[in-house]
Amino acid sequence: MKVVDKMNASIKAGTTFFSFEFFPPRTDEGVENLFDRQDRMASYGPTFCDVTWGAGGSTAELTLEIASKMQNMICVETMMHLTCTNMPTEKLDDALKQLKQCGIQNVLALRGDPPKGQATFQAVEGGFASALDLVKYIRAKHGSHFGITVSGYPEAHPDIIVDDPQQMDKNYWADLHYLKDKIDAGGEVIITQLFYDVERFLKFEKDCRSIGIKCPIVPGIMPIMTYGGFQRMTGFCKTHVPPHISEALERVKDSDEALKNLGIDLGTAMCKRLLDAGAPGLHMYTLNLERSAVSILENLGLISKSKVTRPLPWRRPATDKRAQEQVRPIFWSNRPKSYLSRTSDWDEFPTGRWGNAKSPAYGTLSDYQFMRRHSCSGKWLQKARSAWGESLSSVDDVIKVFVSYCSGRVEVLPWSESMGMMTETNQIQKQLLQLNQRGFLTINSQPRIDGAPSSDPHVGWGGPNGYVYQKAYVEFFCSPQRWHSLQTRLKGAQSLTYMAVDAAGDLQSNIGPSEVNAVTWGVFPAKEVVQPTVVDPQSFTVWKDEAFQLWETEWGKLYEPESESHKVVTDIASTWFLVSVVDNDYVSGDLFKWFDEESANGHA
Amino acid sequence: MKVVDKMNASIKAGTTFFSFEFFPPRTDEGVENLFDRQDRMASYGPTFCDVTWGAGGSTAELTLEIASKMQNMICVETMMHLTCTNMPTEKLDDALKQLKQCGIQNVLALRGDPPKGQATFQAVEGGFASALDLVKYIRAKHGSHFGITVSGYPEAHPDIIVDDPQQMDKNYWADLHYLKDKIDAGGEVIITQLFYDVERFLKFEKDCRSIGIKCPIVPGIMPIMTYGGFQRMTGFCKTHVPPHISEALERVKDSDEALKNLGIDLGTAMCKRLLDAGAPGLHMYTLNLERSAVSILENLGLISKSKVTRPLPWRRPATDKRAQEQVRPIFWSNRPKSYLSRTSDWDEFPTGRWGNAKSPAYGTLSDYQFMRRHSCSGKWLQKARSAWGESLSSVDDVIKVFVSYCSGRVEVLPWSESMGMMTETNQIQKQLLQLNQRGFLTINSQPRIDGAPSSDPHVGWGGPNGYVYQKAYVEFFCSPQRWHSLQTRLKGAQSLTYMAVDAAGDLQSNIGPSEVNAVTWGVFPAKEVVQPTVVDPQSFTVWKDEAFQLWETEWGKLYEPESESHKVVTDIASTWFLVSVVDNDYVSGDLFKWFDEESANGHA
Repeated sequence: MKVVDKMNASIKAGTTFFSFEFFPPRTDEGVENLFDRQDRMASYGPTFCDVTWGAGGSTAELTLEIASKMQNMICVETMMHLTCTNMPTEKLDDALKQLKQCGIQNVLALRGDPPKGQATFQAVEGGFASALDLVKYIRAKHGSHFGITVSGYPEAHPDIIVDDPQQMDKNYWADLHYLKDKIDAGGEVIITQLFYDVERFLKFEKDCRSIGIKCPIVPGIMPIMTYGGFQRMTGFCKTHVPPHISEALERVKDSDEALKNLGIDLGTAMCKRLLDAGAPGLHMYTLNLERSAVSILENLGLISKSKVTRPLPWRRPATDKRAQEQVRPIFWSNRPKSYLSRTSDWDEFPTGRWGNAKSPAYGTLSDYQFMRRHSCSGKWLQKARSAWGESLSSVDDVIKVFVSYCSGRVEVLPWSESMGMMTETNQIQKQLLQLNQRGFLTINSQPRIDGAPSSDPHVGWGGPNGYVYQKAYVEFFCSPQRWHSLQTRLKGAQSLTYMAVDAAGDLQSNIGPSEVNAVTWGVFPAKEVVQPTVVDPQSFTVWKDEAFQLWETEWGKLYEPESESHKVVTDIASTWFLVSVVDNDYVSGDLFKWFDEESANGHA
Repeated sequence: MKVVDKMNASIKAGTTFFSFEFFPPRTDEGVENLFDRQDRMASYGPTFCDVTWGAGGSTAELTLEIASKMQNMICVETMMHLTCTNMPTEKLDDALKQLKQCGIQNVLALRGDPPKGQATFQAVEGGFASALDLVKYIRAKHGSHFGITVSGYPEAHPDIIVDDPQQMDKNYWADLHYLKDKIDAGGEVIITQLFYDVERFLKFEKDCRSIGIKCPIVPGIMPIMTYGGFQRMTGFCKTHVPPHISEALERVKDSDEALKNLGIDLGTAMCKRLLDAGAPGLHMYTLNLERSAVSILENLGLISKSKVTRPLPWRRPATDKRAQEQVRPIFWSNRPKSYLSRTSDWDEFPTGRWGNAKSPAYGTLSDYQFMRRHSCSGKWLQKARSAWGESLSSVDDVIKVFVSYCSGRVEVLPWSESMGMMTETNQIQKQLLQLNQRGFLTINSQPRIDGAPSSDPHVGWGGPNGYVYQKAYVEFFCSPQRWHSLQTRLKGAQSLTYMAVDAAGDLQSNIGPSEVNAVTWGVFPAKEVVQPTVVDPQSFTVWKDEAFQLWETEWGKLYEPESESHKVVTDIASTWFLVSVVDNDYVSGDLFKWFDEESANGHA
């Protein structure tokens, strides 16, 4: 979707939008850390995130890869910068083609800085000399397909900032008319260069309107995070710094922490003035950092850690292709990126009833270019070994790791792409802990919910005035002995449906092979019942390969192939069962009592 | 579906099946009464119903029409009899073609009686001489498409019953071997001729098994209803009547009522013995009457008026074509036959999400050959006039009729195809009464239900161990003044969504044109949420034409075109609004308070 449409919808609804800008990190580990950060920041619901093109297009390939993952794995509406620097037509054509392919519809068209070693900008052979040329070319070649954003300079482009006030005024207005040309050529949104003088932005905005620019004008905000960085940036951009800001900074410049906090306070005050004066939204230059940008938005009441509103329990990529996606198997709920990757070839997404999906094949796990690339790095191996055991002498050592994960002492397990357990599982943390202590190694679960308001901060999702429901769910590995003993007890449990399978594919279940169980659903005004999460044998069979494989590819590889530790892991992977249990009585069931031998026998 | 498959499923599940046999009545009114009766009897869940071919095929056309309506409007699995009498090949081909067209898959293949005036059976030119020929022909021509049932004669075919015991024994075994031939040729089920001596059936069943007949053998039961009828029937069929039965009948033969009750008791005892001895089901020869057959099944505990189990809130025809039908608009819930007729051309049924339906066009109301044909008869007009008013002098007279309908003093209104209100509306009868007294003429409604057990006798449906839900719904006609005043009040009602339209099509609504609101849904173990009833503007727009038209075609036509009474009706139809209101708060909403001016203002 074009960001201009999202902005206009926000303006119409009387809400304030915000967005985050990132740049391509220089190291692989930096890239992976960025994805983790974006993952968290995306949960606040930015209207879009953008990624810069890197100086001189040097990071073109990496930028495209990051943009694609942002759009398709982080699931945030993504805008990619494009500059003219070192950019012949073929290279631009190629970049736009790739954007189309990965479902990105938004670009920020810039001239960019002169190539290294050159003082002034000159177009490359067969390339573009200005952002205006770029906008015109994209529109000529791709019609209205792309949403095009352009840069606005509240204090004029640094290249034309001069000391002579009369000349400066001329230059300022020439710059404004050039901006108008970019809009007339097809630019739809203006994001401004960073500034610290709100008055200058307000004048700029007024001046834009006076020459007929009607599109959204979004102030670009760069929170002050370090003293040195601030000095360099304002110098480079020739940004006017109001005296009260410089003076305040001078007072705390020796304390990094104090300066950062001051930056948040100053940023908050500045943004508040902008919003009060009518700015429709805020564009945050994050410098790939989280705290300052997020704190400012929190101070403004635009985001709240306890009030994350989710349209669905899971995050859907903002691409047209997946716009109809309504249903997902529960199995990947802790590995959404793996799911997205393995379904990326699907032409059509199951809409509503899962059973109607034409059973498209899941991509193989090996096709999946794992996001957490640092899992191959020495640092990661070291961290993983310290969390999952320098060595393992028996199954009990593995059980201890799962128990530690439940109590929060271990942050990550191979079956989860994110750090820590989901907040909603807090409700059943005690029960999960007991399960793991009993040797049922849980990798996925949800508590039962019998009609919570859709606005509930932990389990709510969807629109207002709805009710959401969940059937209690737990999925775990356990030894064949434990499984057979549990299975006997489950025969007394009328409301429970289960599937158990070992690595070889021996499936034991008390439901039919084509049954699809909706385990999360929501009822909303004037809507059909939305049922976004299901449990079904077909996808379970696909998932189990991935689940068993992760023992080896993530955990086993920490140890020497012939070691005892390695054997402990591979023994589990080759002999244990993966079990999925749903308690269909979401009104009054108690899923966990069946794992307690005494309690279960009392009820059976 | 073939009845043999349904029978085998019942046998496998350890349940007892039953079926009802009817014959084509001689008068139009008789036919319409039969449909009403079948409608009620179908709600008990017979495995199938069958209709006879009439002596000598004289009622062929009527039989086909009745069978088609049974299958497609009454929505019961239907079996049609076919006899050889006066049946050349072309006529049979034509009948089978018609059966295929209307989705009937089951036939009962009989030789039939000799044509009138002939003493023994002779095939017509180019026709069939025996049921065996018929079975062979159907299998040769149509492969396994049709389910074929054949007749079994526990006391041998009447034609070959003789006094000489030795010859009789020979004849009996010859008849059995002929039956075996019919099964070998493709017969799948045996239904027996009526009998009153259970021992003879049990011997017959045993003898059948002894010669290798393996298919279901279903005893045919004709409850004794009149003394004369019983005498004629047993004489004609040469049926052995055990002395205890004849003696008991002789004692009460002078009282019709006593005899009928005795017939029920004797039938119950006889069936109980049959079931105890292992009969898998019962085939009831109803003679188009309800009480005896239903009472016997009730006595046996096979059916219960308070425990009707419905797979869905509405009844779906048992045809392959509609097997996927999962969703219906609420508007036709009191006129299911009209809905079935107007959607009979749909190739595909909306599965799951209504919005995905390719919006097939509804057939026009005039295409709809109204089931209640007697509505054209003088008798019906008289009855309708006495219920809806010999004359109307003002709207108040119309209001009185609706109020009487709510209190049960009027049995039927033009907007309902069945007699009396649905049992679930009893819960809101008081509120509906008040609404009608206030001039909101209700034609459709349902109470809110927040998770009732799916086994609830009034509102339950679907499988066991589920929970069903409903959003409160009411639909009514009211004057423009009442509507505008109500609409103002509804602005204060956050949880209410409404659509109002007049005959000219002026639609006023607080929901989008493509919103689909599920107002009935159920949550079941190991299933997706089933949402069989929806409210949506698209079908409302189709329905409103029908709803407004019924004022004239059903009610207005009771009066002279220029009369005051006629004007009262046409004025309503041309100026009033049809309004549909849903309360989306099924957990704690009170839909009706908004109709009470004082109460609503207090809340607004």
